[in-house]
Amino acid sequence: MEEIMDVAEEFHLKVIEDATEALGSRFFSGRYAGKYAGTIGDFGAYSFNGNKIITTGGGGAVTARDAGAVEHMRYISTQAKDDPHYYIHNEIGFNYRMTNLQAALGVAQLEELPKFIRRKQQNYRLYEEQFLDFPLGKLLPFCRGTDSNHWFYSLEIAMDQIHASLRDIITALQERGVQTRAIWGLIHEQLPYRGAIAYQMERAPYYSSCIINLPCSTQITEEEICYVAEQVRDVLEGEKL
Amino acid sequence: MEEIMDVAEEFHLKVIEDATEALGSRFFSGRYAGKYAGTIGDFGAYSFNGNKIITTGGGGAVTARDAGAVEHMRYISTQAKDDPHYYIHNEIGFNYRMTNLQAALGVAQLEELPKFIRRKQQNYRLYEEQFLDFPLGKLLPFCRGTDSNHWFYSLEIAMDQIHASLRDIITALQERGVQTRAIWGLIHEQLPYRGAIAYQMERAPYYSSCIINLPCSTQITEEEICYVAEQVRDVLEGEKL
Repeated sequence: MEEIMDVAEEFHLKVIEDATEALGSRFFSGRYAGKYAGTIGDFGAYSFNGNKIITTGGGGAVTARDAGAVEHMRYISTQAKDDPHYYIHNEIGFNYRMTNLQAALGVAQLEELPKFIRRKQQNYRLYEEQFLDFPLGKLLPFCRGTDSNHWFYSLEIAMDQIHASLRDIITALQERGVQTRAIWGLIHEQLPYRGAIAYQMERAPYYSSCIINLPCSTQITEEEICYVAEQVRDVLEGEKL
Repeated sequence: MEEIMDVAEEFHLKVIEDATEALGSRFFSGRYAGKYAGTIGDFGAYSFNGNKIITTGGGGAVTARDAGAVEHMRYISTQAKDDPHYYIHNEIGFNYRMTNLQAALGVAQLEELPKFIRRKQQNYRLYEEQFLDFPLGKLLPFCRGTDSNHWFYSLEIAMDQIHASLRDIITALQERGVQTRAIWGLIHEQLPYRGAIAYQMERAPYYSSCIINLPCSTQITEEEICYVAEQVRDVLEGEKL
């Protein structure tokens, strides 16, 4: 974020933080020590989709450094009503607000956030132990100087030391009752964007080729984590060159 | 709809029915006898906003004559996932689906729809009686040949026979504890569209100038309806030229 904010300042750019998965994550060192993800740029976006650290079933939240910008987002996302009784809309509005049921769920979920984060951190440490001295796969660390919400656990596989493709590994694990996931498809490789400008893709294709994401529900048990790790190690060992 | 569909056929146009408020309304005579609003054109849209005849808190539903079109709408409104496990998106997708909580509410609400429509019809008839021989305001009828859901009750006021403006009338009623509403602002008069082409606005400005919508909750009581009608008549009588 320090580098991004420096570039933004130099070129007078607005920064929109995609903090969709990062609710509760914060810096504890550096220029932004104490600051939460999503509150450093000009705008921040959080997702409350079903798979996120807290959920409202769908939807999310936006933040802004400028209170006027928050008001404006509220205005255009609530049909841009300038007069609630006479239907005056001085801007083109949208119907993007959360329902009252979703908001109620969100309030209750928010109370659980510290507990969910603790659980995610504990589960991460357990996974980390399970792969500590394992040469074919290592759990990706979180950014130094941050207190991450540990939402997701990514295993970097030493593809140069095994036979199987990533898809084969995912399929083999699926057959053992362990659902793992590839990382999200890279945007510049998606059909609608193949004609778009894409440059300096240095690390993304590499990670895309060698990462599987491990089960990360806050409801997963220690036994299940050990089982997952055992199956992953076993499948990878079996494919060793 | 007959005229609209004739024009669409002649010029090979697609028809999108804005049936947002018309759920459960149908034709009982003419070419579309037995057909529900929203199911005659190529596409239909229903709203389940909080003020509609059934609600899911927000959101709605779309219909299409062509099953492939329904599938395509489901696809693009659910992030255009071509492969649920490997995040392949062959079109630009959106996140417009309803949450599971909203859907559950909607299913329960749908079961109540016939009851809500009956109540709306009963309340309409009661309002109609209340204004039957009243020269200063008459309840707008519903389209002939249709079995309307009677969602909303519009009173057409004889503005040429009274002193007050429509806003004055609404304010006076508000002071007596009766909330009435002007009809929605005309789109061509809204600031963002004032530069847009607008033509053949024959009846809309007239209705906009003389209609108030009366309280129409399915939970309104007969006594409340009589009170509302009495206050409306009283306010209008007091302003008589």
